[in-house]
Amino acid sequence: MKRVFSNIGVLTTATGSVAVSGKAQSAVQTTENAWLLEQNGSIAAIGTGNPPAADEAIDCGGKLVTPGLVDCHTHLVFGGWREHELAMKLAGKTYLEILAAGGGILSTVRETRKASEDALYQKTCGLLSEMLAHGTTALEIKSGYGLDLETEQKQLRVIRRIKERFSDVAATFLGAHAFPEGMDHEAYVEWLCETAIPAIAEDGLAEFCDVFCDDGVFTAEQSLRILNAGKRYGLTPKLHADEIKEIGGTQAAARVGAISCDHLSETGADGIRALRDGGVIAVMLPATSFYLKKPYGDFRGMIDAGVPVAVATDMNPGSTPNLSLPFAMTAGCLYGRLTPEEILTAATLNGAAAIGMADRLGTLEPGKQADLVVWDAANLDQLIYRYGTNRAAAVYKRGMRITGKENLWND
Amino acid sequence: MKRVFSNIGVLTTATGSVAVSGKAQSAVQTTENAWLLEQNGSIAAIGTGNPPAADEAIDCGGKLVTPGLVDCHTHLVFGGWREHELAMKLAGKTYLEILAAGGGILSTVRETRKASEDALYQKTCGLLSEMLAHGTTALEIKSGYGLDLETEQKQLRVIRRIKERFSDVAATFLGAHAFPEGMDHEAYVEWLCETAIPAIAEDGLAEFCDVFCDDGVFTAEQSLRILNAGKRYGLTPKLHADEIKEIGGTQAAARVGAISCDHLSETGADGIRALRDGGVIAVMLPATSFYLKKPYGDFRGMIDAGVPVAVATDMNPGSTPNLSLPFAMTAGCLYGRLTPEEILTAATLNGAAAIGMADRLGTLEPGKQADLVVWDAANLDQLIYRYGTNRAAAVYKRGMRITGKENLWND
Repeated sequence: MKRVFSNIGVLTTATGSVAVSGKAQSAVQTTENAWLLEQNGSIAAIGTGNPPAADEAIDCGGKLVTPGLVDCHTHLVFGGWREHELAMKLAGKTYLEILAAGGGILSTVRETRKASEDALYQKTCGLLSEMLAHGTTALEIKSGYGLDLETEQKQLRVIRRIKERFSDVAATFLGAHAFPEGMDHEAYVEWLCETAIPAIAEDGLAEFCDVFCDDGVFTAEQSLRILNAGKRYGLTPKLHADEIKEIGGTQAAARVGAISCDHLSETGADGIRALRDGGVIAVMLPATSFYLKKPYGDFRGMIDAGVPVAVATDMNPGSTPNLSLPFAMTAGCLYGRLTPEEILTAATLNGAAAIGMADRLGTLEPGKQADLVVWDAANLDQLIYRYGTNRAAAVYKRGMRITGKENLWND
Repeated sequence: MKRVFSNIGVLTTATGSVAVSGKAQSAVQTTENAWLLEQNGSIAAIGTGNPPAADEAIDCGGKLVTPGLVDCHTHLVFGGWREHELAMKLAGKTYLEILAAGGGILSTVRETRKASEDALYQKTCGLLSEMLAHGTTALEIKSGYGLDLETEQKQLRVIRRIKERFSDVAATFLGAHAFPEGMDHEAYVEWLCETAIPAIAEDGLAEFCDVFCDDGVFTAEQSLRILNAGKRYGLTPKLHADEIKEIGGTQAAARVGAISCDHLSETGADGIRALRDGGVIAVMLPATSFYLKKPYGDFRGMIDAGVPVAVATDMNPGSTPNLSLPFAMTAGCLYGRLTPEEILTAATLNGAAAIGMADRLGTLEPGKQADLVVWDAANLDQLIYRYGTNRAAAVYKRGMRITGKENLWND
């Protein structure tokens, strides 16, 4: 089966199979009047002028085509919602008052513990379907709303079912998302290292291990212990760091050889150097900063220092219930002062690299998967500029349309 | 023809037929398990429990229903786009360099002058269709990209065609949007008052007259002359003020009896008092502040002082190319610290009042038009909280569905 995508107004893509940094982050390739030939899910060739013959021809209407977006940091599997916290916050309630009213992350933990695996699976499929419709074709999902083995495994099984159906989903064990109520912190770290990680690794339920290393959550030393335990069981380290305060997370990420370090809204020059020297990808989460009205982080400082920058939604029910990676891209351009080219690389090649998929995803080049988006936009600038509404006209995974009538999820 | 909208999980609406302020702005009515009976385009009755019989029954699936949103400040008719200015700004170009590269408002004027009426009409229909799909069922559109009689009339004829087809569209003459290149400022003001306004009023092409009163554009004195000239010809005054700097716009708006004063991101206590004393509606434009990274304005100060607050998109190709009023609502809540109830009133009843339509639009009450939105949200908090993706599941105007397959514009 061969499909040809013809009449592509502009094909815009990063290039390569590893994370890129510095000037390379903006070196995207732009081909006008292009076609793309897909065969058995992969890109066979790209060219300009008259398209080759194929079993099926898809007219892209002269629009912009980019690689499918890769959302490398999400918390997509959770019970309940927390919309009433917004109204409480706006009404001036403090975080402690919200906790007292039954809110905060531990309320999501309670709801996730209560929910059945099937209910979580159905809910996640619905959210994923919206995400795909906005141009995301591969993603990472974290556990971390269980804080006990049974619920963490339940979340990870939901991720596995999503992965079996959809295929390009990375699973991250984030048992170290918070401390469970009434449990000694050191005992919980011990349990994570000695019980939870071995059990989850044995079932093959996760590829990555992550820790929320920040003020009031896990210390840098605890994070290192947990991530090193994960490594012993084959889980690649990731780290949430510097969202609230710099407490040594970037240095810990570099030391443990983390593939990415995420959030980084408070990271200064020392942290940036640590990431650069450690070869760690910086995953920036501008939609979270927008929703929490917090600093966005020093995107330009990272680019200028040679740290590969990725961008993701951080979709979660507490700090940013947004499924649109294009919105995060626009916010990253405006508030992180990245160019449209830099943010495209951040949302495709570098996002794919942050979840170990850059060998087959993140760019449109022969040999890679034919995951692509046709945008209602004449060029990349317009995609970033026309924020607020969904510009994805059609989304293809391995050459097959996955939005609109052909939605994979309508079965 | 009677239609009944049944199985409404929560019906949430402001009440009344005039702009509301202070505590009344948050006094929305919430009815659970509701139905709404529509007859000949109007609301015949609202109730709970078993719905009455009707010719057609529409199951709202237990979702949130609100009045159709009213976007009371847009610049929807324009030639070209200006996406490349974003990249230039991000690359550090100054406003003057952007102008020198052919950008800025005068580039939109050039493109709008060049475009045919039919081309502008087709483009506006496309944009409007996206806007409707996000829950807007009535709107205002301004001219102001002609700055000569021929083009201003062309824009206003496009608005009239949109209005004839769609009906609830307010037309505003904004000849005083900028000074045309190479023309003496006083001579342009004179021409607006003596030539343009009489000609436009004679053709019945506008109901409102607006001026961009700000630093470097029209002075408060010039604004008063223009708005008073408009009044003599039956055009209701509106005013853009305090977007860049307070130069007396709020006082001018109060003095001339403007129905609304818009932008107001720099307005202080004196300006707020002037609006309150003048009975002027404050139209806040938070999406513009987001896109320009400028102050959002003192929403709470306005509410607390008793100024009715409305919210709109300000959709335009330069300072905020966003068509989604729900995005502006979320930004207004987060950054203006309005509650979801206050922002709903701002986007419905007070928006309708700002364009003289509150007698028939802006709330769901018997006797008003059956313009309503079924949202993919369980309650109002969720609508505001789940930003970034479109939560409008179905949009009805006068009881008829205008989104999805039944899109009015697909003919």
